[in-house]
Amino acid sequence: MLISSNENSNVKLYVKLSANKKTRDEHNQFTLEGSRLIRDAVLEKSDIQRIFATETAFEKNKDFLEEYADKILLISDGIAKRLSNTKTNQGIFAIINKPENKSLCSQKLKGKHVVLNNIQDPGNLGTILRTADAAGISGVILCENCCDLYNPKVVRSTMGSLFRLNIFIEDDFFDVFSMLKANGVRVYASVVSKEAREIRSVEFPENCAIVIGNEGNGLKGEHYNICDECITIEMNGNIDSLNAGIASAILMWEMTKA
Amino acid sequence: MLISSNENSNVKLYVKLSANKKTRDEHNQFTLEGSRLIRDAVLEKSDIQRIFATETAFEKNKDFLEEYADKILLISDGIAKRLSNTKTNQGIFAIINKPENKSLCSQKLKGKHVVLNNIQDPGNLGTILRTADAAGISGVILCENCCDLYNPKVVRSTMGSLFRLNIFIEDDFFDVFSMLKANGVRVYASVVSKEAREIRSVEFPENCAIVIGNEGNGLKGEHYNICDECITIEMNGNIDSLNAGIASAILMWEMTKA
Repeated sequence: MLISSNENSNVKLYVKLSANKKTRDEHNQFTLEGSRLIRDAVLEKSDIQRIFATETAFEKNKDFLEEYADKILLISDGIAKRLSNTKTNQGIFAIINKPENKSLCSQKLKGKHVVLNNIQDPGNLGTILRTADAAGISGVILCENCCDLYNPKVVRSTMGSLFRLNIFIEDDFFDVFSMLKANGVRVYASVVSKEAREIRSVEFPENCAIVIGNEGNGLKGEHYNICDECITIEMNGNIDSLNAGIASAILMWEMTKA
Repeated sequence: MLISSNENSNVKLYVKLSANKKTRDEHNQFTLEGSRLIRDAVLEKSDIQRIFATETAFEKNKDFLEEYADKILLISDGIAKRLSNTKTNQGIFAIINKPENKSLCSQKLKGKHVVLNNIQDPGNLGTILRTADAAGISGVILCENCCDLYNPKVVRSTMGSLFRLNIFIEDDFFDVFSMLKANGVRVYASVVSKEAREIRSVEFPENCAIVIGNEGNGLKGEHYNICDECITIEMNGNIDSLNAGIASAILMWEMTKA
């Protein structure tokens, strides 16, 4: 049976999950669009609740879809258009059960960490996560009301890194800081300041974390003041600052150098 | 007099310049939107042909607008909406005469250069230029049909770096390569390959260039084969590649380290 009504309860749920953080939080689910992301989710053994596919998309993705036969709903092209957040959709969508949010205090925090403090733009968050995956970061901690990890734009820009990274959500920065210190992690605050230590001269220890602040306002004084050291990226000329994604990439690149 | 008609010839010209590369090429002009970019253009002594401002925007920006009294057209809020490429506009727009395209062969190419080979996404191009400015790159060369430097999205994402950087447009990569070599510049091709030299181990000479290829397809074989060396960014795990803006930032960061 082909679903072609906007009133179908599964269709309605997908649309709500895609649009609202509140619904994602209540249901503990989020949405995925496109075959690459859904293949990544399968590969990384995500908990798939439901797959929507047009007949064409089903034929194209048969190789991995057949295993999920009991979870697939066939949809009309009209419904595919309704579900999609992109101009030209691939006709394939999924609802995923969120992984359990691992509690930070039960973890042994070893290696290189990144703490994202009030990052607001979904595209930036997604790009930072993709770069963290490429750089081999051990763990990413989201705090101080970062934008929702399961926002469809974040999910899309991570290009699948969302499923591979070790991500923690722990809202209060002071709590995060205490847990890092309890694990012997050296904590660096990334700031834009001529008085901070230039990042190229830092020898990062084995267990360390860099805290990255909000795109427009940076870190609050009460947050960077408690960190072990303030570090900065030295820049040329009269430009304000790098784009948040670029600055984070340079920080992670330096932090993970051998 | 307040312009409120879409049929006004200046309004029509702005709209066309903003939408079409062909019109920008024919008129040798491009458009700017927003007070920050227009202030940057003024600061860097760009050749301003025309400024459009709503009465509110004029009041807000009086400090620098008064000097341009003979070039200002006051516009209605409706026209501001028509000119704008953003959801909420600031009511201020300009038409700028393009700077002369400096011929590459008349230049002494000294320092660190970046060659952008068929970069297609305006957002990527803008971000790369912004980062090049921050990194203190001596010159950026656009070749092989890169997206238009004066596309409004490029201009917006450069955040003013467009006015500060040394940018050359020279379409044929083989010509660009010859000119670099004639100046004794060592040319590195950036590729995604385990056989290429890892960028952290490269000691970049004083005069060098990195060639960066298309977002999806990278550099053509015939282009990277003639370069002095292929270099790559070593990445973790099973991720395809970094976002083009991020990869370029890491390359420029390593290239300009002391």
